[in-house]
Amino acid sequence: MTYCCGILVQEGLAMIADTRTNAGVDNISVFRKLHIYERSGEHVLVLATAGNLSVTQSAVSLLREGVLNPASGAIETLEGCATMFRAAQLVGHALNQVTQTMKGALIAAGVDYGATVLFGGRIAGGPMALYMIYGAGNFIECGPDSPFLQIGERKYGKPVLDRFVTHDTKLSDALKLGLISFDQTMRSNLAVGMPLDLIVMKRDALSLELNHRVKPDEPYFHELSQSWSKALRDAAAAIPSPPYLTEPTAED
Amino acid sequence: MTYCCGILVQEGLAMIADTRTNAGVDNISVFRKLHIYERSGEHVLVLATAGNLSVTQSAVSLLREGVLNPASGAIETLEGCATMFRAAQLVGHALNQVTQTMKGALIAAGVDYGATVLFGGRIAGGPMALYMIYGAGNFIECGPDSPFLQIGERKYGKPVLDRFVTHDTKLSDALKLGLISFDQTMRSNLAVGMPLDLIVMKRDALSLELNHRVKPDEPYFHELSQSWSKALRDAAAAIPSPPYLTEPTAED
Repeated sequence: MTYCCGILVQEGLAMIADTRTNAGVDNISVFRKLHIYERSGEHVLVLATAGNLSVTQSAVSLLREGVLNPASGAIETLEGCATMFRAAQLVGHALNQVTQTMKGALIAAGVDYGATVLFGGRIAGGPMALYMIYGAGNFIECGPDSPFLQIGERKYGKPVLDRFVTHDTKLSDALKLGLISFDQTMRSNLAVGMPLDLIVMKRDALSLELNHRVKPDEPYFHELSQSWSKALRDAAAAIPSPPYLTEPTAED
Repeated sequence: MTYCCGILVQEGLAMIADTRTNAGVDNISVFRKLHIYERSGEHVLVLATAGNLSVTQSAVSLLREGVLNPASGAIETLEGCATMFRAAQLVGHALNQVTQTMKGALIAAGVDYGATVLFGGRIAGGPMALYMIYGAGNFIECGPDSPFLQIGERKYGKPVLDRFVTHDTKLSDALKLGLISFDQTMRSNLAVGMPLDLIVMKRDALSLELNHRVKPDEPYFHELSQSWSKALRDAAAAIPSPPYLTEPTAED
């Protein structure tokens, strides 16, 4: 399993990915799933991957080496794309190409071949963008009405993003809410785990504001987790008991 | 979709079920999914169902009319069972029998035939129990280490139960936490919806303490939802910003 989220607010972009992979619960490893292609002043392109690790790693490698454009017959790389839309298409081509190549053997082996990618960043001359790209190569773009996208184990961490992330949320708050979303997810699904990789990028920038790994013993994350848990406990305790039941007597 | 949960604490049992069914998002209806077989002083047996509605409704009807016991050849009803374990087996037989009968046609029609049931209550002379029963007829029993079971759309509502429900939680708090769990779920999945049916039963009782329907306009649930949302918002705001980013200057 995996959990990755990307949050695109007015002020910029935050992307977070966990690093846990598992082939069964008895084979757990740490693999980086946040991949950065940065050439300061020209482009910052960030991929977060979920699904079959052999499929996503191959797609990432293919994007570094060059992907065959089926229309032109040319070999293209992410670095050569002029716009984020064109780059998202190329990521889609790579993902679909790898999926098609490996699908038959993986189905025969009874292995899930599904893979999805979050792709965010900016190329000089164009706007910042965030996409979710499916295994078939198709993709959707994040907009101000729903300013975040998630892949992998998205459900446990979705409510806090649903409730509080809007297009106007401050970038530092977006990152904080993203981390709370990861805390929620890691508590309920062992297949999502530390360390976490994250990036932050301001909307008009052409370099990363932050490229950080949150390690298991990091004091800030530990404190965030504790504070959130305590606040939820206090909140639940502060809500009155359901009025449906007879009130207990003083002796109870 | 559906969401049902059962919480079995030291003090007793609470079970909650939503009432929304959907065949696609353009065909939404209200159907009761919490079924009660109560004979005061003798037994209280409660079924909450999730999955294919035709399968679960048929299983519930079969349990009222009588299920063929494949071992003895006799027709048995829930009311005739001497223990909760035997009754859980009978629910399993009914669910499996209906599933096997309808499976072929449903697969051919491309319809998901999966169904699961929560089964809780007490029969005179024995202890209170709560089971989760699968379509194949097998089942697991709720114990003090994990004092709740969920079926259907369980993920959004699981974190709050994971965090705060223990065997020692008061029964009224268990019901309140269950309702928060439903609030979380209904916010994130349109396929789970009001009204909610719920029961509460004290551990040594042989009659229901409460049999209630929460309607969409009920003031208590509305207030619970608002309070929870506000408390989460305050909690998120109270957590300091991540220290990874450069602190904004006074002019920001």
